[in-house]
Amino acid sequence: MSRDREARAALSAVVEPGEETVAVRLEEAGAVATWNAVRDGDDALDKTGLLRRRAVRVDGAGVLARAERLGIDFLCPGDPGWPAPLNAMAATMTFGADRVPPPFGLYVRGDVDLSGAVDHAVAIVGARNASRYGERVASDLAADLALSGWTVVSGAAFGIDGVAHRGALTVGGVTIAVLASGVDVPYPRGHTDLLDRIAASGVVVSEVPPGSRPMRSWFLARNRIIAALTAGTVVVEAAARSGALNTARWADKLSREVLAMPGPVTSALSVGCHDLVRDHGATLVTDARDVLDAVGQLAADAAPLRQGEERPFDRLLPVQRMVREHMSAEGPSSVDLLVRATGLEGARVRRALRELAIGGWVTQVPGGWCLGSRVP
Amino acid sequence: MSRDREARAALSAVVEPGEETVAVRLEEAGAVATWNAVRDGDDALDKTGLLRRRAVRVDGAGVLARAERLGIDFLCPGDPGWPAPLNAMAATMTFGADRVPPPFGLYVRGDVDLSGAVDHAVAIVGARNASRYGERVASDLAADLALSGWTVVSGAAFGIDGVAHRGALTVGGVTIAVLASGVDVPYPRGHTDLLDRIAASGVVVSEVPPGSRPMRSWFLARNRIIAALTAGTVVVEAAARSGALNTARWADKLSREVLAMPGPVTSALSVGCHDLVRDHGATLVTDARDVLDAVGQLAADAAPLRQGEERPFDRLLPVQRMVREHMSAEGPSSVDLLVRATGLEGARVRRALRELAIGGWVTQVPGGWCLGSRVP
Repeated sequence: MSRDREARAALSAVVEPGEETVAVRLEEAGAVATWNAVRDGDDALDKTGLLRRRAVRVDGAGVLARAERLGIDFLCPGDPGWPAPLNAMAATMTFGADRVPPPFGLYVRGDVDLSGAVDHAVAIVGARNASRYGERVASDLAADLALSGWTVVSGAAFGIDGVAHRGALTVGGVTIAVLASGVDVPYPRGHTDLLDRIAASGVVVSEVPPGSRPMRSWFLARNRIIAALTAGTVVVEAAARSGALNTARWADKLSREVLAMPGPVTSALSVGCHDLVRDHGATLVTDARDVLDAVGQLAADAAPLRQGEERPFDRLLPVQRMVREHMSAEGPSSVDLLVRATGLEGARVRRALRELAIGGWVTQVPGGWCLGSRVP
Repeated sequence: MSRDREARAALSAVVEPGEETVAVRLEEAGAVATWNAVRDGDDALDKTGLLRRRAVRVDGAGVLARAERLGIDFLCPGDPGWPAPLNAMAATMTFGADRVPPPFGLYVRGDVDLSGAVDHAVAIVGARNASRYGERVASDLAADLALSGWTVVSGAAFGIDGVAHRGALTVGGVTIAVLASGVDVPYPRGHTDLLDRIAASGVVVSEVPPGSRPMRSWFLARNRIIAALTAGTVVVEAAARSGALNTARWADKLSREVLAMPGPVTSALSVGCHDLVRDHGATLVTDARDVLDAVGQLAADAAPLRQGEERPFDRLLPVQRMVREHMSAEGPSSVDLLVRATGLEGARVRRALRELAIGGWVTQVPGGWCLGSRVP
């Protein structure tokens, strides 16, 4: 396992966050073989030779030793404390369509158990140049969610991200900052104190090694981890092409809830939120209760079904039957495929799949959803 | 026909607006028989004897003569100028569930042709105690819709209604005020000038005779006519129990589009709008383009289908097939029934029905939707 960890640490220091080809190879061949291939200049992984040139100077054991000296943990899939929700990312890699490459590992600063903290977690993201309205709403929402025992996950940026973290901290809640830089490289600088406070009572995580300064493209890649760690992403204020919408897209690809706070139609900072609701099936939310109604639905739905309490096939709703009948008998069906096949909205297909999963009719697998073990 | 008109005028002077029992009888027995029954104290229509006591003092010919002296027209179903969209109300009366009683007739003040004016018409309704935000948004929306050639229908109340009318007038558009009082009784008083302006370039209508002062319950009944005259109702600012939501409910019962403008989640005046989107399947709209996208859909969808361009049954989307397959072969199926049968949202069922209607697969009839003439 130590060689696996070292290989993952080395990969995290050499490969761009969110890169697909290497992530696919890792799923197929494992970390050690993938690292060896990168180091040896495997053309399929490294057309320009860039990775090989970088790899020459990188030693996984050294990366880990440096992290350890800084008091920073490195969590790998399967480790105690590894957040199980991230496994949904690996599941997207095996079959095509909506790939969300998992991180090689997570560098963690803070003493809170990450896997426990994400058991009930919601992301709150939004505009950096937020309005006072947006900041007030995000802060209240974060505080209310934290008071309900939910962890608030965000990206520590100025604006909505920052007030979301602060709102959770204010009421003594747990909050997680996912950085595009190393967890020891405060970014933005102006949030150095905030990141210290988050690390003191929550967790600061990153997929890039300590000491890394953030590259521009890493922020978009970072957003997939924010989406993956949580049951849903709430967008509070986002202009038409805001980065926060990128987090919402990752959430959608991962079948997480996408939630949006409305605002004045006269505010450019609410355009992205309204677009999400109107054109992309996001759920409109106005407060923490709405958010919990949406992300807590699965748990609530699952509750009444216990061993022996089966729902026969003919008691399924027609819409559930229709989705199930359009699933392939031979391999996983993606949500996209079911949307095209049924003519239903993506959100409706996903809801039906979750409802079916609760009854054992379907199972989420790498690449989509399969018919479950239950025989109709 | 003259006796029918007189009976309808008499009924309009005696029966409460929106009353169901009398409206059902009128659909079955016609206006003259219904008026005779009311005048003679038919117990089934008039348990307390109130209508009979009122009827003693009422003479339909006199009501009509008085209207004529004031320059007020009385339109009855089938008259030239009678707005065809109101026939959807009569259609709801034959079968149970969602009844929307039609008016006995419409008193009309203004020279614009009412039936032409509602050919492309949208309702804009909302809070009386609107905020400056709501007033600005409603005014801009009304002006933009009017500039696109759409008629703006509202209730002439203070707040959103008033600015909607004014917004349309400002750009030289046509606007229709539906009053709960007689069309010659300005209500609210403060809108006397506004109502004169509306009558000068648009239409003021009411189902109660000239001279009538509005009763409290009449406002809710009046809202059904606002909904029925239009392809959709836009709610701009509404508190949790606002009367504007009542108009939205009528629109929903009549299978009209229900549209809502979002606002700050911190504003009590937007709570009703957000509720509509989140819990009642209303479409979020932020400007006139959004509104026309929603209410203009039918026209746009219908365009490419001409004589000879048929869509075969197997090219229907599964969701359309599913809705069609759950329709009764023996009588009309209501949207509610189809919602229960399919497990789809009401808005999705309605959209599928409209899509099916365009292809001739189903037809809207009194009480719901029937299988169309096309044989699969």
